[in-house]
Amino acid sequence: MDLQLSPLAVHFPALAPVDGVRLGAAEAGIRYRDRTDVVLMELAAGTTAAGVFTTNRCPGAPVDWCRSAVKGGRARAVVINAGNANVFTGRAGHEACAATAAAAAELVGCPAKQVLIASTGVIGEVLPHEKLTAALPALHANLRDDAWEDAARGIMTTDTFPKGATRLARIGETEVRINGIAKGSGMIAPDMATMLCFVATDAKIPAAVLDTLLRKGVGRTFNCTTVDSDTSTSDTLLLFATGTAKHPRVPAKGGPVLRDFGQKLDDLLLDLALQVVRDGEGAQKLIRIDVSGATTGRSARRIAMSVANSPLVKTAVAGEDANWGRIVMAVGKAGEPADRDRLSIAVGGVWMARDGGVVPGYDEAPVVAHMRGREIHIEIDLGLGRGTATAWTCDFTHGYIDINGSYRS
Amino acid sequence: MDLQLSPLAVHFPALAPVDGVRLGAAEAGIRYRDRTDVVLMELAAGTTAAGVFTTNRCPGAPVDWCRSAVKGGRARAVVINAGNANVFTGRAGHEACAATAAAAAELVGCPAKQVLIASTGVIGEVLPHEKLTAALPALHANLRDDAWEDAARGIMTTDTFPKGATRLARIGETEVRINGIAKGSGMIAPDMATMLCFVATDAKIPAAVLDTLLRKGVGRTFNCTTVDSDTSTSDTLLLFATGTAKHPRVPAKGGPVLRDFGQKLDDLLLDLALQVVRDGEGAQKLIRIDVSGATTGRSARRIAMSVANSPLVKTAVAGEDANWGRIVMAVGKAGEPADRDRLSIAVGGVWMARDGGVVPGYDEAPVVAHMRGREIHIEIDLGLGRGTATAWTCDFTHGYIDINGSYRS
Repeated sequence: MDLQLSPLAVHFPALAPVDGVRLGAAEAGIRYRDRTDVVLMELAAGTTAAGVFTTNRCPGAPVDWCRSAVKGGRARAVVINAGNANVFTGRAGHEACAATAAAAAELVGCPAKQVLIASTGVIGEVLPHEKLTAALPALHANLRDDAWEDAARGIMTTDTFPKGATRLARIGETEVRINGIAKGSGMIAPDMATMLCFVATDAKIPAAVLDTLLRKGVGRTFNCTTVDSDTSTSDTLLLFATGTAKHPRVPAKGGPVLRDFGQKLDDLLLDLALQVVRDGEGAQKLIRIDVSGATTGRSARRIAMSVANSPLVKTAVAGEDANWGRIVMAVGKAGEPADRDRLSIAVGGVWMARDGGVVPGYDEAPVVAHMRGREIHIEIDLGLGRGTATAWTCDFTHGYIDINGSYRS
Repeated sequence: MDLQLSPLAVHFPALAPVDGVRLGAAEAGIRYRDRTDVVLMELAAGTTAAGVFTTNRCPGAPVDWCRSAVKGGRARAVVINAGNANVFTGRAGHEACAATAAAAAELVGCPAKQVLIASTGVIGEVLPHEKLTAALPALHANLRDDAWEDAARGIMTTDTFPKGATRLARIGETEVRINGIAKGSGMIAPDMATMLCFVATDAKIPAAVLDTLLRKGVGRTFNCTTVDSDTSTSDTLLLFATGTAKHPRVPAKGGPVLRDFGQKLDDLLLDLALQVVRDGEGAQKLIRIDVSGATTGRSARRIAMSVANSPLVKTAVAGEDANWGRIVMAVGKAGEPADRDRLSIAVGGVWMARDGGVVPGYDEAPVVAHMRGREIHIEIDLGLGRGTATAWTCDFTHGYIDINGSYRS
């Protein structure tokens, strides 16, 4: 299938090296021809690590591997392949992870449990890990510190553009860098939507603190985005801190010294998450949903995600129809406290419905113009409390059906 | 928009009269031209009533009206209109219900609270109830006992076929009849998917017993179906028992005398629910999902609905692809107990995956042939316990995007 570049695509930014990280991509021929499909990332001795993974109860073997390995809080390498997700492959799946980790560990000189693994692509087929491990020595010999875009391209499946982001943050008076790459959420039958994301910094941060920062950041970013409500079996987000930067020591429990770092990390995660949404299958428009006035923040988030996951809201946006009736429906079906007669809805900054009824004679012209744009803004005020949340999604178009409803090739 | 007849359509069955029920349809000109859009159903004195309604927290005014009115357990009339759902209309919405009920009550000779109201169509517009009440006297003068199909046609919005079902049941030695009509789930922007269903029997059953039967029946039928996961603000299912049949008295708490009636009622509700799914927007295939081996029945139902609501599973079926990988994903994302390594999946009766892995060399030919048909059968065995459930849905096609993503006319 020939996929057209998403109209919401952004350019890959210039990513300066992160001290302590070398990476590269190679062609292992796992499934695709004439493109890179295996990525190796080598991390300096002493690198701390944290990860978050899919909540799907049927995760792939690499997710099992990483969940266990990341508990040690240390990492020296990451091996990622595209073309085969190593999901629903039983014992052979675990063995493929172990063999891959052992091969990378030997090259890098570390225990196998300090090698993390991620895979994306078709499922239910045993990963031909010999092809992967055969490619590793040459790949390792050619690692560079400036190959972030190569790495981002090497993990794409049906992504239409490579995804990367970079931020500078201050810890004390020291500037540290945070780089990240991600892939998602294109798909070819019988693939499943998989989201992979790898972030590295040269800051020196204890693994437990890294874990806290990551969970907090993901809650506000990746976990507030959706393309089609289907949670993959492979979602993996790994965060590494090489510790090569010289800055004031970060206490074991974190603290105020990490305030700027935490903000910049959240900002980078949101950047990458939105790039994934921008590359959602068939996406023509990026949708932002701001909920306010909910009874709690948790309730606001559930309502925002209910709207973001509603096929009727998403098809209305595809049709450039500011259909607030469907928004009312999606708010109501969330099952969270809502009072129809206090509900207000704005599209493109224009309040169309207020306190449970249409705003008489509201000016439709700016709303129509807004709906024709690429970025759609929906605001929902429940009028009940102080809970707020934001969610992002894309519209739901014929492109989605084309990509996911085609015959298996 | 010109909607083509669903390829899954079924013929409207011959519905013999239910003693104590007279009905008819008329043109009130609420929104549509040259078609009936208001239906009146008159019920014999002494009719008992029960109802179930949308769980959406932003229900329409008619749902509020019915919830309150049906508490009395008695009904003498139902007024239903198509073209305007009377949702998100504030105080004017309630007043429209009250005025409509008052007008019908005067014609029938009963308290207004014994008139039930249902509306379907555009939302956010005040219902022009004068048009509706103006049509009622002539409509009332022409009520017949054999106009069930007329009534089913009068409540259609973008349904592509009228929906009805009938069953005979025995209470003691007496045969009673159950008739039902339904509408759903076509849609034109800015309508919302609305499901309305009206069922009547000549049996004599206390309202509380009717309510129990209805809730039990709905749990296994309508509540196990989905078209697009979007819960309407108007869903209404009303059940009436005119009590004109002569059969052994039904005790205040029901009991074994109603066993056959309960089974036939469930069967009729399932028939109507599946007709709604068969008319799902853009539906080309009807999908049945049988889950077994779950830890509990409730868990089985959640897993079945997770699969039924998965856009990836539904687009795969549209593409005639027996993509069990997406089924694994949808099982896992339900959040219910599942063990990847005990999971088995069959399509069209052929077990493709067993105990967490592909069945080596399974015969794909019958699966491919099955996927080309109109009725798709998916079986999922979790291998954990004895919980079972069944859900029904339709596939997800370009037709859905056409219907719901078109510009508002």
